Amino acid sequence: MNASVIGAALYAVEVIGIAAFALSGIIEAARRRLDVVGITAVAGLAAFGGGTLRDLLLDRRPLFWVEHNELLWMVFALALAAPLFLRGRHFSLTERAMQLPDAIGLGLFCASGTQIALAMNLPLLVSVLMGLFTAIIGGVLRDIVCNEIPRVFSDHRPYALCAFAGGWVLVGADSLGFEEWLCLFLGAATATISRIAAILLDWEIPRWRTE
Amino acid sequence: MNASVIGAALYAVEVIGIAAFALSGIIEAARRRLDVVGITAVAGLAAFGGGTLRDLLLDRRPLFWVEHNELLWMVFALALAAPLFLRGRHFSLTERAMQLPDAIGLGLFCASGTQIALAMNLPLLVSVLMGLFTAIIGGVLRDIVCNEIPRVFSDHRPYALCAFAGGWVLVGADSLGFEEWLCLFLGAATATISRIAAILLDWEIPRWRTE
Amino acid sequence: MNASVIGAALYAVEVIGIAAFALSGIIEAARRRLDVVGITAVAGLAAFGGGTLRDLLLDRRPLFWVEHNELLWMVFALALAAPLFLRGRHFSLTERAMQLPDAIGLGLFCASGTQIALAMNLPLLVSVLMGLFTAIIGGVLRDIVCNEIPRVFSDHRPYALCAFAGGWVLVGADSLGFEEWLCLFLGAATATISRIAAILLDWEIPRWRTE
Repeated sequence: MNASVIGAALYAVEVIGIAAFALSGIIEAARRRLDVVGITAVAGLAAFGGGTLRDLLLDRRPLFWVEHNELLWMVFALALAAPLFLRGRHFSLTERAMQLPDAIGLGLFCASGTQIALAMNLPLLVSVLMGLFTAIIGGVLRDIVCNEIPRVFSDHRPYALCAFAGGWVLVGADSLGFEEWLCLFLGAATATISRIAAILLDWEIPRWRTE
Repeated sequence: MNASVIGAALYAVEVIGIAAFALSGIIEAARRRLDVVGITAVAGLAAFGGGTLRDLLLDRRPLFWVEHNELLWMVFALALAAPLFLRGRHFSLTERAMQLPDAIGLGLFCASGTQIALAMNLPLLVSVLMGLFTAIIGGVLRDIVCNEIPRVFSDHRPYALCAFAGGWVLVGADSLGFEEWLCLFLGAATATISRIAAILLDWEIPRWRTE
Repeated sequence: MNASVIGAALYAVEVIGIAAFALSGIIEAARRRLDVVGITAVAGLAAFGGGTLRDLLLDRRPLFWVEHNELLWMVFALALAAPLFLRGRHFSLTERAMQLPDAIGLGLFCASGTQIALAMNLPLLVSVLMGLFTAIIGGVLRDIVCNEIPRVFSDHRPYALCAFAGGWVLVGADSLGFEEWLCLFLGAATATISRIAAILLDWEIPRWRTE
């Protein structure tokens, strides 16, 4: 498979992931009664926060949303249209419907972030962390702005762990000399599938005992 | 008008805007019973947070407050002097008195941020967003540190929208080939005047309906 | 004393400081009932947040934890082991036991941050602020993620002030032409000793009067 085909496929999936993350921000912001500015801002933070932090930490410019500013327009459009398609429905229904695209976004973002760092010859753990940041920091910033403890840190559900596992699978495949597209695929699939399994099978992270 | 005259004029207005933003931080921090360290920190965040994020995102160094570190001293002095000139007055009075300099700061910061990004040949929407970030992120960080949902996202008053409009006016004027100082002036004036109109005429952003 | 010996000594003390800061994050996160992902994240933020912000502001790459990624493994190990050594003890006991390493971390981080900025010929106040950020921003981020007003801004105890004083002592010693290791030592000692004195003697920052 040549690079431009992989690039186009990655980009298509990225659009889905960004839309899913933006929607999670819109729902959270609407729940907290933010105004349209706040809804747009939280949608943007959720969608672009992780990749932006990754790019800042790795000193990459232009930022991915500067290069692809059509993504910004998409998130704007989603935030403005949200009152239309969300009104009258229960948020929780929408939230359930979003779990699949969100899991896809999780997988893709963790794989692309890890791959970008690997290509810069960073240490393996750092590469995996960059993938993890890309995948989860948007949600963390969304929750901080909404004045909540980030869900990914407190809900005892595997989410960051799925991205972490996916990153290590990608790194492992890479060190076995697999082709780039296969590494990306295996990493993303690990994260996405383990996340879906966690939801379907109701997995929980063990609780901290303090008594 | 030559560049150094514009530069000096811009700098003078910037000092006013930074002082207004720092004061908004001081009042918020004092309300939340922070100590003198917290008051100084929140003042600094409110005054410098937006421009710092802009410079990080655009990879500009030195940061504007490193180049003009007399601005840091000014904010320090304001924070330390605040107990003297605020004691015995009602915060709300001071807050009302600050609405004009705050609106001026909003206009200037959005115009200068947008112009800086335009000069780097960034896409128009990205340039407008850089102006917007310069203008509002200081207040967002101030509110997050004070453990509140950022006011700019939740009070249903046009604030970010004024900066957004000002940015587009600047971008429009620039694409019509107007001189730089005129673009800056039109952009800043749009943001400042629309903000003042919003306060005087009690404009509200439409509410999200969820019933 | 030659540079590599200083370097090795600094590194050894830095490890202690990072461990102390990570522990403060672990305790805070456990108090707030975060899960193991959250505990690890807050430990990492507390340990690496300040230095990372300093490196971003100064545009230094690779980030210190990229260069020394064994520090990441250490924090991971601490976070995972925490339930073992914290279970059954009172957090407050651990917190008291941490005050000494925390004060050492404070001194070392403020000294190393100030020194790094001085070596880049930044203005003195900016250099001192870089030391201060290195020392306190980790704790600030820890508290923000845990949905609290940062303790360093609100507990009326000298903490940031100790780092601030240490930074100025370092800068003063440097301008007197002292050797680098001596400047570092004097700065770190000032911050650490003043912090310990503040704890032992129960110093308080004067309160803001608003009546």
